[in-house]
Amino acid sequence: MIIDDLAELLSKFPGIGPRQSRRFVYFLLRQNRNYVEQLARSILELKKETAICTECHQFFPDTVSKKLCRICSNSARDRSTLMVVEKDVDLENVERTGVYNGVYFVLGGTVPLTNEEPEKFIRLNDLLARTKNGTEKDSLSEIILATNATTEGDHTADYLHSKLALFATNENVKITHLGRGLSTGTELEYSDKETLRSALSNRK
Amino acid sequence: MIIDDLAELLSKFPGIGPRQSRRFVYFLLRQNRNYVEQLARSILELKKETAICTECHQFFPDTVSKKLCRICSNSARDRSTLMVVEKDVDLENVERTGVYNGVYFVLGGTVPLTNEEPEKFIRLNDLLARTKNGTEKDSLSEIILATNATTEGDHTADYLHSKLALFATNENVKITHLGRGLSTGTELEYSDKETLRSALSNRK
Amino acid sequence: MIIDDLAELLSKFPGIGPRQSRRFVYFLLRQNRNYVEQLARSILELKKETAICTECHQFFPDTVSKKLCRICSNSARDRSTLMVVEKDVDLENVERTGVYNGVYFVLGGTVPLTNEEPEKFIRLNDLLARTKNGTEKDSLSEIILATNATTEGDHTADYLHSKLALFATNENVKITHLGRGLSTGTELEYSDKETLRSALSNRK
Amino acid sequence: MIIDDLAELLSKFPGIGPRQSRRFVYFLLRQNRNYVEQLARSILELKKETAICTECHQFFPDTVSKKLCRICSNSARDRSTLMVVEKDVDLENVERTGVYNGVYFVLGGTVPLTNEEPEKFIRLNDLLARTKNGTEKDSLSEIILATNATTEGDHTADYLHSKLALFATNENVKITHLGRGLSTGTELEYSDKETLRSALSNRK
Repeated sequence: MIIDDLAELLSKFPGIGPRQSRRFVYFLLRQNRNYVEQLARSILELKKETAICTECHQFFPDTVSKKLCRICSNSARDRSTLMVVEKDVDLENVERTGVYNGVYFVLGGTVPLTNEEPEKFIRLNDLLARTKNGTEKDSLSEIILATNATTEGDHTADYLHSKLALFATNENVKITHLGRGLSTGTELEYSDKETLRSALSNRK
Repeated sequence: MIIDDLAELLSKFPGIGPRQSRRFVYFLLRQNRNYVEQLARSILELKKETAICTECHQFFPDTVSKKLCRICSNSARDRSTLMVVEKDVDLENVERTGVYNGVYFVLGGTVPLTNEEPEKFIRLNDLLARTKNGTEKDSLSEIILATNATTEGDHTADYLHSKLALFATNENVKITHLGRGLSTGTELEYSDKETLRSALSNRK
Repeated sequence: MIIDDLAELLSKFPGIGPRQSRRFVYFLLRQNRNYVEQLARSILELKKETAICTECHQFFPDTVSKKLCRICSNSARDRSTLMVVEKDVDLENVERTGVYNGVYFVLGGTVPLTNEEPEKFIRLNDLLARTKNGTEKDSLSEIILATNATTEGDHTADYLHSKLALFATNENVKITHLGRGLSTGTELEYSDKETLRSALSNRK
Repeated sequence: MIIDDLAELLSKFPGIGPRQSRRFVYFLLRQNRNYVEQLARSILELKKETAICTECHQFFPDTVSKKLCRICSNSARDRSTLMVVEKDVDLENVERTGVYNGVYFVLGGTVPLTNEEPEKFIRLNDLLARTKNGTEKDSLSEIILATNATTEGDHTADYLHSKLALFATNENVKITHLGRGLSTGTELEYSDKETLRSALSNRK
């Protein structure tokens, strides 16, 4: 039955349970034909009109079969600095703040703490190829491992560090991590040792 | 741009903001073609394969152009009792519990407390026609106004009561409301006057 | 050290952890002497000036060594109906709503689901004595087991029922429970079977 | 009535409403005499046995009429660095992490955004005296304005900066702020501009 079937499909959306997916179905039933057709068409065309940038691996709208996203094809960006982020939304948020003018690489995930096959969860080989290319063509001088300040993010950064260390030394590329400290809203009363230690050593 | 456009469309889903709708888009980008096509097709076919029951007005899967839903066309249901509910999901939940064997009418909404045009928000005329029909053909003897025990639900029940009162008297149809009392999980310490009063008068 | 010691004592308050109890201490340090002395004195005098009513067993302010609380000594209350509640705050809330004019008995707790010595958790013997007394002196005709509509509350009511059944039959005393149904705020979409069944059978 | 009176007094505790304060009273009624007396005595003695350190102004247990707290009287602490914090609990948390070996000053509050009399909310004169004293006796070389990374904390730091600027220049004392950046748990997707900018400039 179509109502159950669609609710089942929508319940796979991230963070959506069976109750909310059912509410989505009834919502769709109450919308006009125009909205529903636009939605279905957009979902179908999403993948066709979206490409993965061959350099940073973010998704981007690809209407004329370009290979590079808006950032990687922008000659005004500083290609000597490469920020490695976990997910597309991380890149989007950094762009939104406008504080960074280098280029990116999207890992596509994190290395789980317990996992024995890290390369299944992140684009390790693509990253290695990208950094090699960077030193050959763009005088890449710094790789910022901009993973989240979470246990999994730290673990992923450690893993990447170990995989990039030899290359970085040989090619004279700096590997850096985002600075720790008080983030907006942090209260001293609830801060952990790592945050306070960094906040102290980064004081100015 | 397709990513923004689809995120915009998905942000109209009930309870979904711009951040989560964007996460939906990236989720869709990572799914295989099979899932995405099935989802788009289901959304398109949802309205085609779904009809509104001409009697209870619930949505139901309509593959052979039937006019009546599974409940309204079931001769084992007691057609002398009509439960009026706010939404399709209310009907579904009552059915799930299996405690009711009568038939239903789905209002499609509630009367807002401040609104001057109640008939825009609920299927009043359809309800009036349905109850008239019920007395003529099914010896309808009771209408249960099963709105939520909320301010809007009570307000809607009051409004319906006023609209049905004359008809009910003339046709000797009882109008009832679901019993108030302690619902599962209710603690005396936090109960309001209305709940305690009903719990006391319904004690047994 | 006094700050740690007092924080430790305050952390025993219901729902208060070590962080909040510490905040209480610093709050006290900032208050004027008047408030602090009044608080300490009130805590000391609390037990002295409070008695447990010999009939209903609620705590009440006892300035002249009375034995009965304001309710049990009020001749306008209907002594033929006895409402058995779990805690003092339950009694207080029922009184606040003003919907009940009978008398009470405070159990002092609930029977844990897994426990083998129920009489350690509730005032069973006091209740048995109170009901016996009630039939002898006040023509007690109904005992309302007004426990919470929770698993533990239901379990406690079942236990009391089994202990009171023979007495009730012999003395022609009715044992009742508060009515179940929709409590204020309940939505049909989220109601469980028990609540809906009761709401239906209590409809009117 | 004592129950109401004590509930009223306890409802002034930070974060405690009338319902919870009432639960505190019933909790106290159920405790043994020993606990209740210890609690009342501790509350009474709290202020007597606690002094405010004449240097850092934190509360500390004072049994022999000392003027200095454990930290300010500890010759192993580095008196050339003074960390200014909002509250006693902030100092406690920094101490708990063990990342700092300098001395402190407790402001006792923050400057409200809208307030016209900042000196009513913080110990400004005491701070000015303390820093003057620090340069004369301890070769004070740095003041860390360690307020929370909140709007009020930033506002307070700005205010203090303006009040200390001339003195700092004349006496060659550095005024610093805790470093901003990703704090433990921060995710890039949800980071604001200020946090990301600092995290980038503090990268290493």
